[in-house]
Formats: sequence, C-alpha cells, structure tokens
Amino acid sequence: MNHDPRIILLAHGSSDRRWCQTFEKLATPTLDSVPGSRIAYMELAEPSLETIISEGKNDGITTFTIVPLFLAAGRHLRKDVPGMIEELQDNHDVTITLAPPIGENPQLGNAIRDVVTQELERQKQPA
Amino acid sequence: MNHDPRIILLAHGSSDRRWCQTFEKLATPTLDSVPGSRIAYMELAEPSLETIISEGKNDGITTFTIVPLFLAAGRHLRKDVPGMIEELQDNHDVTITLAPPIGENPQLGNAIRDVVTQELERQKQPA
Repeated sequence: MNHDPRIILLAHGSSDRRWCQTFEKLATPTLDSVPGSRIAYMELAEPSLETIISEGKNDGITTFTIVPLFLAAGRHLRKDVPGMIEELQDNHDVTITLAPPIGENPQLGNAIRDVVTQELERQKQPA
Repeated sequence: MNHDPRIILLAHGSSDRRWCQTFEKLATPTLDSVPGSRIAYMELAEPSLETIISEGKNDGITTFTIVPLFLAAGRHLRKDVPGMIEELQDNHDVTITLAPPIGENPQLGNAIRDVVTQELERQKQPA
C-alpha cells in the first residue's frame, strides 16, 4: 500500500535501550492509527532515517513528512536534520518535509497540564 | 498562599532564547491552572532549580514535586537531577519528589497522534 506522504516520527536516539523504548511507546498511538507511519532515530539507534527513507522508496513512496519527537528546536532541528534531509533527498530522489517539533503544537501544553493534574491526584491517594 | 507541594516543571535549558520560549509556552496551561506551579531550568537559563526552591522556601513551602519536561529519561534524569535534588534538600531543608518524565505518561502518546493527524490535514489543504 502506498501511503503518501509517509509520516516519520523522528527521535534523537540513544545507546540506552530504555530511552528508545519510551519513544517506541510514545509513537505507538500514531503508528496504530496513521497508515504507513514509522519511527526513526537521528543517531545512536536503529532504524536510522536513512533506513526508513530507503525502505519507503523501495515501497514506491516519494514524499515523506518528518515530525520531530522533540519538545523544542535546538541545533539538531535547526541545522543537523535539515542537512541530513538535503542529502537524503539528493541520494534517494524523494521529497522530505520537516514539520515543526511536536512541542510547538498547543496540544502538547494541554497534555502536560493533564499529566501534572494526574500526578497531583496520585500523590493525594493513600500509599 | 501556601500550595504544597509546589509543582516545578523542569526543562533542560538553553542559551537560545527561542528554545526557552517554546518551553514557556508549553508550561502556560499548567501555570494557569495549577496554583503555585513554576517553570525552572536545569542549566543554561534562568530561573534555575535553585532559585525556584529558594523562593518557595521563602514562601513557606517545604515540599516540591519536579515534573521533568523531558520525553524520556537519559543521563540527566537518572543521574544529574537526582544529584541536584539531594544537594537542594540538604541546603534548604525541604523534601523534593522527582516525578517520571512527561513522555512516560500515555497522554503524551495520544497528543503526538493528534499532532500528526493535524499535520496531515494541514498538508491536504490548498496552499
């Protein structure tokens, strides 16, 4: 099935397997409800962005949208990722769009408020 | 007003003012709805955790809960922040609880799914 654009949830990546597992859990609701979506890591973990773009191209997909699982844009999103995208577009003859980091969407601020409210409720309960 | 425990939303911090502004926006729904809550930075930006604990103590608050605005626990949350907490508890005679990073709460995964769905809708609209 060709799902254009293919959504790629991009996490930083870590050599710590527990770190990656948290991101896999975070990605699950998206992977379950958005056909063809994938998770990829910028560095230090697999699958890499290169792997996911290459697989997509083999499936006939030519447009990709990267949604960064970052709360804010720092050096990685302002410089490193755009550089990787330019190279991947050239090498694989695909079009890649970089969406804003998830933390720039107001939904996230509301989710944080709900997490804090839950934490306060949890603390009120007898141990 | 004494709001015990005082909720502290802890972000990493950055010398890039835009980075901090994103976190201030992310914190706004919580700061608006949880009385006495504050944002603090681990490093590279103000207010520091030390500043916020010290201010709280001056307001008569002795218990604090830190909710990390991190998607997953890496070295900072496993080692650096617990070390800072131990020192702050000793220096200010307060009790500080470290909550799990926001990304370990399933709410966040659902918010990410909603952000992706919005991004796909946005791309479908004529420019």
